[in-house]
Amino acid sequence: MKIAVIGSSGHKNYVFETLDRQSEIVAYAPGVEGEEVSYEKGRAYGNWKTLIDEVRPEMVVNNTWYGSAAPVTLYALKKGCHVFAEKPLSGTEEELAQIDKAWKESSVYLGGMFGISYESPLHTVNEYLKSHDLGDIRIINTQKSYKLGKRADFCKDRDTYTGTIPWVGAHGIDWIYRYGKKQFRTVTAFHSAVGNGGNGSLESIAVCAFKLEGEALATLTIDYLRPGAAETHGDDRTRIVGTKGIIEAQGGKVTVVDDQGTRELPLLEAPLIFPEFLKDIRAGKGREEWAHHALYVTEICLKTRLAADREESLTL
Amino acid sequence: MKIAVIGSSGHKNYVFETLDRQSEIVAYAPGVEGEEVSYEKGRAYGNWKTLIDEVRPEMVVNNTWYGSAAPVTLYALKKGCHVFAEKPLSGTEEELAQIDKAWKESSVYLGGMFGISYESPLHTVNEYLKSHDLGDIRIINTQKSYKLGKRADFCKDRDTYTGTIPWVGAHGIDWIYRYGKKQFRTVTAFHSAVGNGGNGSLESIAVCAFKLEGEALATLTIDYLRPGAAETHGDDRTRIVGTKGIIEAQGGKVTVVDDQGTRELPLLEAPLIFPEFLKDIRAGKGREEWAHHALYVTEICLKTRLAADREESLTL
Repeated sequence: MKIAVIGSSGHKNYVFETLDRQSEIVAYAPGVEGEEVSYEKGRAYGNWKTLIDEVRPEMVVNNTWYGSAAPVTLYALKKGCHVFAEKPLSGTEEELAQIDKAWKESSVYLGGMFGISYESPLHTVNEYLKSHDLGDIRIINTQKSYKLGKRADFCKDRDTYTGTIPWVGAHGIDWIYRYGKKQFRTVTAFHSAVGNGGNGSLESIAVCAFKLEGEALATLTIDYLRPGAAETHGDDRTRIVGTKGIIEAQGGKVTVVDDQGTRELPLLEAPLIFPEFLKDIRAGKGREEWAHHALYVTEICLKTRLAADREESLTL
Repeated sequence: MKIAVIGSSGHKNYVFETLDRQSEIVAYAPGVEGEEVSYEKGRAYGNWKTLIDEVRPEMVVNNTWYGSAAPVTLYALKKGCHVFAEKPLSGTEEELAQIDKAWKESSVYLGGMFGISYESPLHTVNEYLKSHDLGDIRIINTQKSYKLGKRADFCKDRDTYTGTIPWVGAHGIDWIYRYGKKQFRTVTAFHSAVGNGGNGSLESIAVCAFKLEGEALATLTIDYLRPGAAETHGDDRTRIVGTKGIIEAQGGKVTVVDDQGTRELPLLEAPLIFPEFLKDIRAGKGREEWAHHALYVTEICLKTRLAADREESLTL
């Protein structure tokens, strides 16, 4: 698999850390003017479109500025490249519709960088849900809490950043959809840039509430206020409440409470998202699932951001 | 203090378990027809209005059916009795306005049964916040999770129950207001009675999102889905995120993370709500604070329930 990497602003480590013998970084380029890109592998290009036209990679790994990423994905899909892209896939609904159309007209794979769901705790949750019956999932609560640290300049402007709900909240929306397997019906949210440490329009906090199909409900709380002295960068949490039990991941632990009482689950070894993506491509499996998940989560991100901007509930 | 207890459907134990030598239950009566009331102390009356007229208690403890409680509180206030009442104070905004007016025209105390905030973990949170600077409070996340168990018949009908957001959610709204000390600006919520085990219109789940003054945000998630085998009846949680640190209570523990890292706080001995109420009455302190808190939390409960019914965001 000949891979080109566009940009350097997202989770390219998912790729660089897990290349296998059949995969090779052949070229790289910035995704936007001003993005510094320099890798030890592959040939450097100054322009991503030239790269795609000349190199014709089999896969484009797209991790340029989040709000500027859609044109790269769109062009790559049209040129018949598989795409492994940072989430959200786009910063606007119009671009998302174009990507959706281009993917449907192609025969390639489109995957989103939802790597956190492959880490051990959340993978353990996922596997547990496959093999145990929690009854009907009624509520999913999710939390993203990050250290603010030093944010790149492109994060200070919505045009290039997309916003905290799409960029950080995408994970919570990913989990709600991944574990609940229910369509979103109504979304509502608030967000604020107050207390963001001088980071332009970057929203430092957000809260979201969702009504899913079958009257299931969900929440997502997001903040960049985790103190710098905390032992981990993030404090991710997810709590899945079914009619027959509750499972949750918090602090690196997974706990179940059901009719047997409360117990901590042994953590499963984490798979790695990029090798899983490659494996599915080579086996010709899951093309629809990979693309649908990334497209749908992006759609919900953008609707939820709009709900927050308007301070209204939006029905899908 | 001569005390009359009306009804038997709420937290009268706050009173019975903590009477002091200067307090006495002199009489009791049902708050509505059909409510069974029988206590070892005091004289039994068949009608609460007759009781108040004849006994002229100094205080009425009102814990009749939640949706039927407002007329008792209103009458008692008008007759010059202090009132210690189950939350919410009323099931309608009209009744709440009447109670507010009657209290303002009186010189008595009106306290709400927010006893959970006096238990050790939340008391520890409260005392910590008084003596430590978490900076500006930006987010408060709250959770109420209860075992459904067997619910009384009056909980199956909103007219007598008020709804899960007012009855259970009142605690979360209490905490958000108590710890954040910020006015609510916009409320939004969803709730559903699906999976409520045949309990009429009782909502088994609810999620709420709040925008507070200064663009602070808050969430509240409520469910009656805690498995019967769980070690405690409730799984209450509150997480308070400030610009200088985060404090949370969960699983009976209180944890702080700030620029010193993460640490568990020693739990303080819990005060008891009813003795605190009596103490303030006798000292002539806090009359405004007790009433305002119960009135305001009830107001937010009712607005949030309306937002959930309409699936709209409501600005106050």
